[in-house]
Amino acid sequence: MTAKNRSKRSCDYPMLSFEEAWRRISGALKPLPPVQEPLESVTGLALAGDVIARENIPPFAASTMDGYAVISGDASCERSIAGEQHAGVKLDLAVTEGTAVRIMTGAPVPAGADAVIPFEQTAEANDRVRLLSIVGPGDNIRAIGQDIAAGETVLKKGSVLGPAEIGLLAMLGHSQVPVHPRPRVSVMATGDELIPIHAIPRLGQIRNSNAPAIATALRVCGFDAVALPQTVVDDAAALERAIVEALSDSDMLITSGGVSMGTRDLVKSVLARLGEILVGRVAIKPGKPLTFAMIHGKPVFGLPGNPVSSLVCFEQFIRPALRRMSGLRLLGRPCVDVRLEQGLRHDPDRTEFQRAIVERDPDGFTARGNGPQGSSRLKSLSGANALFVLPAGTGDYPAGSRVMALLINQPEASEDLPTGSLVRKFQSPWG
Amino acid sequence: MTAKNRSKRSCDYPMLSFEEAWRRISGALKPLPPVQEPLESVTGLALAGDVIARENIPPFAASTMDGYAVISGDASCERSIAGEQHAGVKLDLAVTEGTAVRIMTGAPVPAGADAVIPFEQTAEANDRVRLLSIVGPGDNIRAIGQDIAAGETVLKKGSVLGPAEIGLLAMLGHSQVPVHPRPRVSVMATGDELIPIHAIPRLGQIRNSNAPAIATALRVCGFDAVALPQTVVDDAAALERAIVEALSDSDMLITSGGVSMGTRDLVKSVLARLGEILVGRVAIKPGKPLTFAMIHGKPVFGLPGNPVSSLVCFEQFIRPALRRMSGLRLLGRPCVDVRLEQGLRHDPDRTEFQRAIVERDPDGFTARGNGPQGSSRLKSLSGANALFVLPAGTGDYPAGSRVMALLINQPEASEDLPTGSLVRKFQSPWG
Repeated sequence: MTAKNRSKRSCDYPMLSFEEAWRRISGALKPLPPVQEPLESVTGLALAGDVIARENIPPFAASTMDGYAVISGDASCERSIAGEQHAGVKLDLAVTEGTAVRIMTGAPVPAGADAVIPFEQTAEANDRVRLLSIVGPGDNIRAIGQDIAAGETVLKKGSVLGPAEIGLLAMLGHSQVPVHPRPRVSVMATGDELIPIHAIPRLGQIRNSNAPAIATALRVCGFDAVALPQTVVDDAAALERAIVEALSDSDMLITSGGVSMGTRDLVKSVLARLGEILVGRVAIKPGKPLTFAMIHGKPVFGLPGNPVSSLVCFEQFIRPALRRMSGLRLLGRPCVDVRLEQGLRHDPDRTEFQRAIVERDPDGFTARGNGPQGSSRLKSLSGANALFVLPAGTGDYPAGSRVMALLINQPEASEDLPTGSLVRKFQSPWG
Repeated sequence: MTAKNRSKRSCDYPMLSFEEAWRRISGALKPLPPVQEPLESVTGLALAGDVIARENIPPFAASTMDGYAVISGDASCERSIAGEQHAGVKLDLAVTEGTAVRIMTGAPVPAGADAVIPFEQTAEANDRVRLLSIVGPGDNIRAIGQDIAAGETVLKKGSVLGPAEIGLLAMLGHSQVPVHPRPRVSVMATGDELIPIHAIPRLGQIRNSNAPAIATALRVCGFDAVALPQTVVDDAAALERAIVEALSDSDMLITSGGVSMGTRDLVKSVLARLGEILVGRVAIKPGKPLTFAMIHGKPVFGLPGNPVSSLVCFEQFIRPALRRMSGLRLLGRPCVDVRLEQGLRHDPDRTEFQRAIVERDPDGFTARGNGPQGSSRLKSLSGANALFVLPAGTGDYPAGSRVMALLINQPEASEDLPTGSLVRKFQSPWG
């Protein structure tokens, strides 16, 4: 296939359905091999093996209150105070009939004591303490292994490491854990017309906005761009050098531009020479020229150069691909059924993703398109909190009909959504 | 008030309601003063001023297709090819009657042409091109300023900067923008009993798990711990030194431990000496000893030492506080009404946050507690995707009754939720 690809033009690649494109991409990817990482670096990653507790938590019987350690069966209602055990190394103290030890939250319970009575239920004077209520055996004491028993599976393979999980690992002395690492991603914008952000364009030039936008999209979903290579000009040799170099230092490469029908659209032919193109055209709008290749076992996404097309393709293909490479199980975005405020025109030849604003409604969600949908018009994506999914094979949608909307953008946006609404998980194509 | 605080014990502070505690915290905080930041560093931040376009986008009439630039009114159905304009600097080409210029997507339209016909609708041979369909004036051309007009407000103050917003700013040449900076946060665990993660505890000692858990909670919501200072022992002078030093280099300090009733619970008295304690006790469970102070204009949160209490207080108070300091408008988590699978016991004296697992259900959400709710039992928080909110003043909840659940944890968890469910925004206390 590689040899044949060399001379192919964009239009020679089969037009794949949205679902088939994702099936090919997904089939080529697997979670990155596990590595041991320190706790500081594993936030949001998936655990690559079960974690078994090597110790009991608590490792000693500990007070859950500030108060007095006592013998619960001791009938004397006043006791002499035999000392104080604060949190920290266990002192050589013991509680006997008629005595009590002042004890702090988290401190080890002294020998002999079987209960703790809180300060609030006592009166202390002259090194003696009076108990104002009755305590039973075990009251206000955490027994050894009460929270976690040694040998217990604390976290299962695949767990996503958040605050509680990291706390558990630290508690149990796991300073490193096996995880699927975060893929390192290179982002590269191609095109003779591109200039840096700070430069003043000459007539015909535009600033490179795709690389910063894609790097931001990566950050928002918890990944990071390895480095932003310079813009690459539309020259096959320069492109090939830049692609090979970027891949040498990353687990995935994302390019933008140069995948369409033009005489200087060279990305597909360079990728075909270096590896295998699995996706060359997709029946989606925007994003028809989306290209996906595997080069020496590493994925390369060739995004279209139009700003909206590139971000929509990022959402639909790259974010789930990165989550798959990270060993995360949930790949897609949440999805809601919405009622259209206005009618939508839709060409049944392609699955279309329209930028939308979804709002709450007593009966669920209501939604409208976010202004003109031209694929250069980035403003349609700014402020949008959802993408309508209009499947291939369906025609125009009249006002009032129901469509599926993927919730995208900042947590901000999706947090603003949920009120009185019918929400359900998007089943396809990541099912 | 400062002088009076010095001798106060924990129980001398007024017991505040959940709502009053947040009112005091919120009232003491405001967004950090705006700074100019480069686009690489502003992901997720709030814009501190409107952004006005200084240029038109596109800045020149540009082709939206690969094809031929032509005069639409030209009657000749075959034209000689006068040259090729690719994307990049505009060449000195012109289209006249009987001629066409080959043109690529994004390229400037040559003088004279008023339309572009796509390759697919033409046949080219011997430097001549035949038009197979009719084009009208303006077809396949993006006019100057069509996407953005110079002078237009592109992004409003308060906009959260995501991929599309960063793309727009880059496109318009804004390499820096005014934003409310991300607060820099110090995290400090206190307690004689604490040892580092890699150490082997002696009887009575436990590992410092709160600092890594809180640092992770910060990361998950987009903030970062400035640095993790060493664990601080329960000594007033050492605590005071550590607090002053931590605050000198950060916008907020979070401590854990040392805020309860014990004889070595020194954090409140040290904070009272250094500044003003606004919250000393809150009628919530877990988290009653939660402490909030302002020291030289900077907020300090004294979290309880119990692992669950500290993370629950982080959720309820620190996350919204940080979002407020960042100039973000939406402070709270999304919230769902759930139907209880099992009954819950609840003490009407306090607002209680129980760790819960919320699941979809044909009629909405159903939920259950995530195992025993002891405030040391971090496992109850791991795997939980919600916190039940059981307001003070309400009693036990029988199975089948409805409660409010805040959606917490990784996007992972909340993404897994939404299906066929009634979702609504949590109104109180962040309204």
